[in-house]
Formats: sequence, structure tokens, C-alpha cells
Amino acid sequence: MAGPKKEIDPTWTQTLIRGIRNGETAALAQAITLVESTRPQHLEMANTIVEENLKNAGKSIRIGITGVPGVGKSTFIEVFGKLLTSKGKKVAVLAVDPSSTVSRGSILGDKTRMQELVKDAHAFIRPSPTGNSLGGVAKKTRETMVLCEAAGYNVILVETVGVGQSETAVHGMVDFFLLLKLAGAGDELQGIKRGIVEMADAVVISKADGDNQKRAKMAQQEFKRALHLYPPKSNGWVPKVLTCSALNGEGMDQIWDMIGGYLDTAVASDHFHQKRKEQNKYWLLNHLDELIKDHFHHNNEVSKALQRFLETVGNGKISPFKAAQKLMQLYHKSLKI
Amino acid sequence: MAGPKKEIDPTWTQTLIRGIRNGETAALAQAITLVESTRPQHLEMANTIVEENLKNAGKSIRIGITGVPGVGKSTFIEVFGKLLTSKGKKVAVLAVDPSSTVSRGSILGDKTRMQELVKDAHAFIRPSPTGNSLGGVAKKTRETMVLCEAAGYNVILVETVGVGQSETAVHGMVDFFLLLKLAGAGDELQGIKRGIVEMADAVVISKADGDNQKRAKMAQQEFKRALHLYPPKSNGWVPKVLTCSALNGEGMDQIWDMIGGYLDTAVASDHFHQKRKEQNKYWLLNHLDELIKDHFHHNNEVSKALQRFLETVGNGKISPFKAAQKLMQLYHKSLKI
Repeated sequence: MAGPKKEIDPTWTQTLIRGIRNGETAALAQAITLVESTRPQHLEMANTIVEENLKNAGKSIRIGITGVPGVGKSTFIEVFGKLLTSKGKKVAVLAVDPSSTVSRGSILGDKTRMQELVKDAHAFIRPSPTGNSLGGVAKKTRETMVLCEAAGYNVILVETVGVGQSETAVHGMVDFFLLLKLAGAGDELQGIKRGIVEMADAVVISKADGDNQKRAKMAQQEFKRALHLYPPKSNGWVPKVLTCSALNGEGMDQIWDMIGGYLDTAVASDHFHQKRKEQNKYWLLNHLDELIKDHFHHNNEVSKALQRFLETVGNGKISPFKAAQKLMQLYHKSLKI
Repeated sequence: MAGPKKEIDPTWTQTLIRGIRNGETAALAQAITLVESTRPQHLEMANTIVEENLKNAGKSIRIGITGVPGVGKSTFIEVFGKLLTSKGKKVAVLAVDPSSTVSRGSILGDKTRMQELVKDAHAFIRPSPTGNSLGGVAKKTRETMVLCEAAGYNVILVETVGVGQSETAVHGMVDFFLLLKLAGAGDELQGIKRGIVEMADAVVISKADGDNQKRAKMAQQEFKRALHLYPPKSNGWVPKVLTCSALNGEGMDQIWDMIGGYLDTAVASDHFHQKRKEQNKYWLLNHLDELIKDHFHHNNEVSKALQRFLETVGNGKISPFKAAQKLMQLYHKSLKI
């Protein structure tokens, strides 16, 4: 991942804005790096770039794709993405990688993923392996989507790894939410979090090929029945259940047609734009949360005091509760000056 | 759940503090209601009560219990809890119920759960069905643990419902983390989030009775092998895999003995106290986050402006990005006065 070359050059910001507008992937990649940076001067540049690009953004379909590890998400995205670029679409793939909180191992370090799509001139793939908080990564995903759209990408695929919180966050920023599921023996719903199934606009049973085809069809029937038990969606859309095989490319066209059908209905009923408006409200609230916290932690005096208090709290000399109160008093005092 | 009777009576705070110290469950329940309240005057009372009780807290073993819906968590807790009270322990059961983000259905509305334990004079059961955010409920769980400990409860069981974020939060505030698992056909690890298995200090295969006994034993073997693939824990503890049956009470004594063994090792190596110290640091950081946000949102002028900006952001008249910046400017200006 290339870092920004000139950190305080104001013309650099303009160069990136122009580059994105011209669809240059190098400029896009560097702007995203700025967006993901936690350094204040980068943040300032990033804000300007995102704000400038907002007017050229929004003209895409944003698709969230989730599923447990092993379900074949990257293979699916590889084949599905190639189909879309062959149809003349420009496809951006963003991966929300919350990593494991214990091992902090990044599943996206694997360079062998999406080998074909990586070489495709009409595809842009951007993992975000650096996130130290689920919410943090997902927040930057909104800004990253804006930049991709401004650079001319009209299909955005956002991949998440099936651990609950990131799905909720991603569901709140996409137009269509797709759950990939492997056909297994027995109870198909075992192990799937109810909340994630509820969010899905479609369930796609992956790896429906060879010996697995019959099981996939059975799983499809089971899911169709199960989805009827969930409350209807506010837009009247009834979640679809499809099967596909990334191995032989089967079912991919149907998935794209289904999403097209969803779009037609949602745009006609204005639900599409209503949903994006609601998502923008959430964006405001989430972004505010970040700004409020940043302002506190970037306060030099407070930040130093926090380090001292962490020490004394660790030694049991003061309660976390009391320490927090004292830090807030210090923060407010420092703001009044 | 009884609400606080007198909202602004300062002697009420002292009555509750005294009541908790005397182990009165009514006082404990009302104090927890105050802790969970979002009203500023309740918050102030709650802070005083928690701070006062902190010196009497900490003398318990805190056990987190997780598992997907249907695994039999409440039946397990009912039988395990009864065993502990029969051994002379005072047991508090706290349930972190994040609800479903879509349907907002509360699994804790079910009054038939833990029928025996509810009647036990040495058990205190407190569901928290009102939470509107995962983090929110979990944050209050720390304070609630402190109050329970101050009231003399020496085993705290914290139940979570297996959706990822709440487990991470609860793992960060307990001494021992137990994953309940149902023996199923085929791949035992299917559907379990890697992160949650990594956090577990023990995996317990539930419902190991009748026809299911053989499958439970197989699942136990499979898990033992699988757990070897995870990185070792920093304290040297090797996670154990046990089976149990809540139906006939089998395996419960072994589970308690295992936890006792963990405690002995962890206390001897001082890892137990080191972990609690680290957890207190997290508590400070989490509590700060809440205070910072509360302070922003309780600002009358800012709060009104936020409502206006949500409107204009919804109408697309201003970007979420710009709106957030303007709100921050307003907030900082209001603080200087």
C-alpha cells in the first residue's frame, strides 16, 4: 500500500482530487490511504478530498457480501466480479477485515485471493487489513465507497467476514445485502446468527457443483421455507434464495439479474433513495462519534493525563470510574482556555 | 423491574448503598436500574453508588458463558447455579442481551427461564432487556458486577447470546470464559466464529445425554484436537473440553472443579490480578468513551442543531461529512462560553 508522498503540500490534495475524477487508480489508492490514516494532517487532507468528491459520488450499486470463513467469498467475488466487468461495469471490491481480536491475524494477507480480478483493468480491489476496531474499519468504508464512485466505479462489492458487528455496520451502508451459505448436512440454520439472516436481501448457496448439487438444492428449499418465518422487509422485498457455483460459473448471471430486479423495484418505489438518505443520517451520527472521540484524544494535556491514569488504575490506586471523571474535568477545563 | 422511587432525594442514594452492603436484593435491583438509566440525575446517583461500592467489590469469580441460541444456556445456568448455591455460594446471573438489530425481539422476555434458580434465596438473576446498543449493555455489566459483588455475591455468571461483539466485550470483563456447544452431526467447528473459540478458556458440550452421548464424546475429541491449533494463551492455560447434561446433572461438578483449578493456577501466577488490572484499564477507556459522547449529546444547543442537520442531511442539502464538521464547531464554541 503506497503511502502519501508529500504530507503537507496543499497542491497534493488537488492532484489527488483531479486524479480520482480522471479514474486514476494510483490517486484513488493513495487517497484511501489518507482516509484510513489516523494522523491529523492526513485526516484534514482526506476530509477535503472526500468532501470534494461527494458531488460525483452515489452513482453505483453498493452490494454487501457476507458469509462465514470457508464459504468461498473471495472465489465468488472473483467470478462474479469478472462477469460484471465483462458486462462493461467498473467494479470496486472493498474488504472489511475486522481481524481476530485475539490473534490479530489478517485473512487478507493472502495474496493469492482474486488472482484474475486483480489483473482486470476495470476492477479495483482494496483490502483494509489495518483496522484495529470493527467500527473503525467500517467507518472508513463509507468514505472509500465515495472515492470509488467518484472514480467511476459503478458496482461496489463490500466483503465482510461474518462476525456480527461488521455485518450490521456494512448492512447500514449498502443497497443490497447478500449472504453466502455453504450447503451442509442437516440443519441449515445452525450457526447462522438470526440477525444476519434477517438483514439478507438474498441468500446464495455457494459451491453448488458436482456431488454437492443435490445438497445445495435441498438447502435452497430449506432456506426458502425458513425465510418466510422472518418479518417482511419494510420495502416489500421478499428475500430470494439462489444457488451458484464459482467453479463452473453457474448461477452468476441469475444473481446479477436478481439484483437488477431488486434495483428496479426499489428505485421505482423510491425506497432506494429513502434508504440512502437514512444511511446518510447514520453516517452523520457515526462520523460525529469519531470526531468527538478524536478531539478528546488529540488533546495533548488530556492525552498525557490519560497515560498517567491508566498507570494508576492498573496499580489499583484509583478506580476507573473516578479516573474517567477526573479526565473529563481536565478536558473541559482545557477547552475553556 | 422496579424504578427508583425518589429521584432527587440524596438520602435515597445512601439508603441504596447501605442496602447493597447488607445484601438486600431490592436495593441491589433498584441500584442496577439507576445504573442502566440514561437520565442525567439517575446517572449521578448511579456513579456515587458504584464508586462507594467499589471498595467492597472484586471478591468474586466472574464467569462469562456464551453459545448460540438453542444450545441450552439458561438450562445450563439453572442447573450449574443450583449446584453452586448448594455449595454455599451466592450466585448472580447477569444476561447481556443485545437483541436483534432488525426485529429488536428480546429473548429474555421469556419468564419461564431458570424457574428454580429464580426462587433460590442465594441467587440473583438480572436480565438487561432494554439495551439499544451492544456496547451500551456490556458497559453497564461492569458496574452491575461491582454492585453484585458488594452485595456479597461471590460467583457472577454473565450470559451472552453468541453474536460476536458482546462476547468480545464480556471476555474483557470476566475471569473465565466458557463456550457452550451442542454436539451436531459432522463438522463441529462449522458456524463457530474463530474469535470466540480463541477466547474460550473451556468448551463444554451440552446435552450429553441419551442418544446424544456418543456424539457429544466425538465432539469433545474433535474440539480437543481443534483447540491445539490455536495459539497458546498468555497465562499458559490450555483450554479444556468437557461434556455435561443439564437434564441429569452430569458433568456439572467437573466444570466447577475445572474452574477452581484455573483459579488456583491463575492466582498463584498472579495472572488473575494482572488480568483484572488490564480489564480496569479497558474499563477506564470504555467509560471515557461514554462520558465524552454523553457530554456532546447532552449539550442542549448541539442536540437541537443535530436534529436540524439530520433533517438537512436526509434531504441531501448537506453532506454528512460537512454537517458533522459544523456540529463540532458549534460544540466547541458552546464549551468556551
